[in-house]
Amino acid sequence: MHLGTLGVVGVGLLGGSVALAARQRRLAGRVVGCDRSEDVLHRAAGAHILDEATTDLAEAVREAELVVFCTPVDRIADQVLEAAPWCPPGAILTDVGSTKAGIVRQLTGRLPAGVTFIGSHPLAGSEKTGPEHARADLFENRLVVVTPGEDASGRATARLMAFWHTLGASVVPMRAELHDQALALTSHLPHLVASALAGVLPDEWRFLTATGFRDTTRIAAGSPEMWQAILLANRECVLEALDRFRDRLERYRCALAAGDGAEVLRLWLEGKQVRESLTGR
Amino acid sequence: MHLGTLGVVGVGLLGGSVALAARQRRLAGRVVGCDRSEDVLHRAAGAHILDEATTDLAEAVREAELVVFCTPVDRIADQVLEAAPWCPPGAILTDVGSTKAGIVRQLTGRLPAGVTFIGSHPLAGSEKTGPEHARADLFENRLVVVTPGEDASGRATARLMAFWHTLGASVVPMRAELHDQALALTSHLPHLVASALAGVLPDEWRFLTATGFRDTTRIAAGSPEMWQAILLANRECVLEALDRFRDRLERYRCALAAGDGAEVLRLWLEGKQVRESLTGR
Repeated sequence: MHLGTLGVVGVGLLGGSVALAARQRRLAGRVVGCDRSEDVLHRAAGAHILDEATTDLAEAVREAELVVFCTPVDRIADQVLEAAPWCPPGAILTDVGSTKAGIVRQLTGRLPAGVTFIGSHPLAGSEKTGPEHARADLFENRLVVVTPGEDASGRATARLMAFWHTLGASVVPMRAELHDQALALTSHLPHLVASALAGVLPDEWRFLTATGFRDTTRIAAGSPEMWQAILLANRECVLEALDRFRDRLERYRCALAAGDGAEVLRLWLEGKQVRESLTGR
Repeated sequence: MHLGTLGVVGVGLLGGSVALAARQRRLAGRVVGCDRSEDVLHRAAGAHILDEATTDLAEAVREAELVVFCTPVDRIADQVLEAAPWCPPGAILTDVGSTKAGIVRQLTGRLPAGVTFIGSHPLAGSEKTGPEHARADLFENRLVVVTPGEDASGRATARLMAFWHTLGASVVPMRAELHDQALALTSHLPHLVASALAGVLPDEWRFLTATGFRDTTRIAAGSPEMWQAILLANRECVLEALDRFRDRLERYRCALAAGDGAEVLRLWLEGKQVRESLTGR
């Protein structure tokens, strides 16, 4: 896998890490970064992340064989539509957003011939933001889901998978709708739950929290605008996941109200077994 | 603070750490450990945790000025009642259980004259179990809540507070009922929520979990018997905490169902602000 020019739109933690990883692995002859904020581009330059920087989207993508959009999920589709006419024939456009079906839906049938969009979602991130926190190893040993639509050629899909693979990730293709359904349970619901849990802690009892509360609510510190956009973009699936979770909480509630120790133990054991089956604890 | 003899009943991770910390800080001339399991005592000996070891409760407490019960919350009261007649006059008995009011209730007015029980709850622990994981620094910079009842003298309370302080902890006295109400929110609810969240993850999507899901559910891997006992012992308070949490989840659900982005953002910001106010992130 080798690219002449790689475009990165949105040079925050994720975009910066894509650029840094691509440069360090000599995946691209040239990495052009685009951000609407001059300040972000200045900080990215300070961190030696990009070969070229611009606030002009058309300029950033003009020679790019691959463009990675690393902007909030509610802006990706519009930016892809804006950039696509400026891309060279054969260009592949992708993103790193946490929801996929809505973006794919907004783009279907609206891109110029010869330009393909295939969604990506790297299961990697941090509560930290900004290019100064970019890490060349952010995708190493992580999973990237790619969601080729019906219009994506096998060749384009294979090239995109090779791109993420070269950055150190495992890559799995999935339908966008299935991705969103799964991620609602594995990521969006946990964020909502962590946030709700943090939200019920009264001020006067903060000093009585220990590592349990802190670990369970760590992800509640994520970016408000980012999580607002993700939860809304995937709200049907998140609501379904929330219903499943409420049912399970209700089983716990009934067992406690009835003093049913056997059921409490059964529920706990099931959760513990799932938790212990997860690798990389 | 110096003790001639310190008794430790239940030599697991917590009991072992109490013994180890007391020996390392030369807090007691002699640390006697008691466990009903010969195997546990053998492992504790291997880890050089105790001066003396016995399976006989009476023998363990006979000369102890302070006895720390480190057994499951549903057994503490009975063991204290069994041990108390064998204790020397002036002995202080305490525990490390996560719930306090029930234990205090079971003991009130039932101890021989000259023997005082005052509950303790060190906000320290680990998913690990057994004396081989004991750590002399487990209580350093942690908080220990002590819950003196009306029958506890100021002198006994001060001695118990000095004990934990010498092991490196900050100590705060609270009413047992208030402790249980607060801990239901700061510890028991998070454990129940983490467990319920782990419980709704379908097998086929386990590979799509990342650090968010794993951090949020880490404590779901705790000891089933221990958590069954804690949740049942404090069930009234846990049910109240669960109601507060359900109300907050319901606000999120309504906001998502209505596509109310402003409310989603408001809820997120409140949770984020709480989370970021917690020290030791």
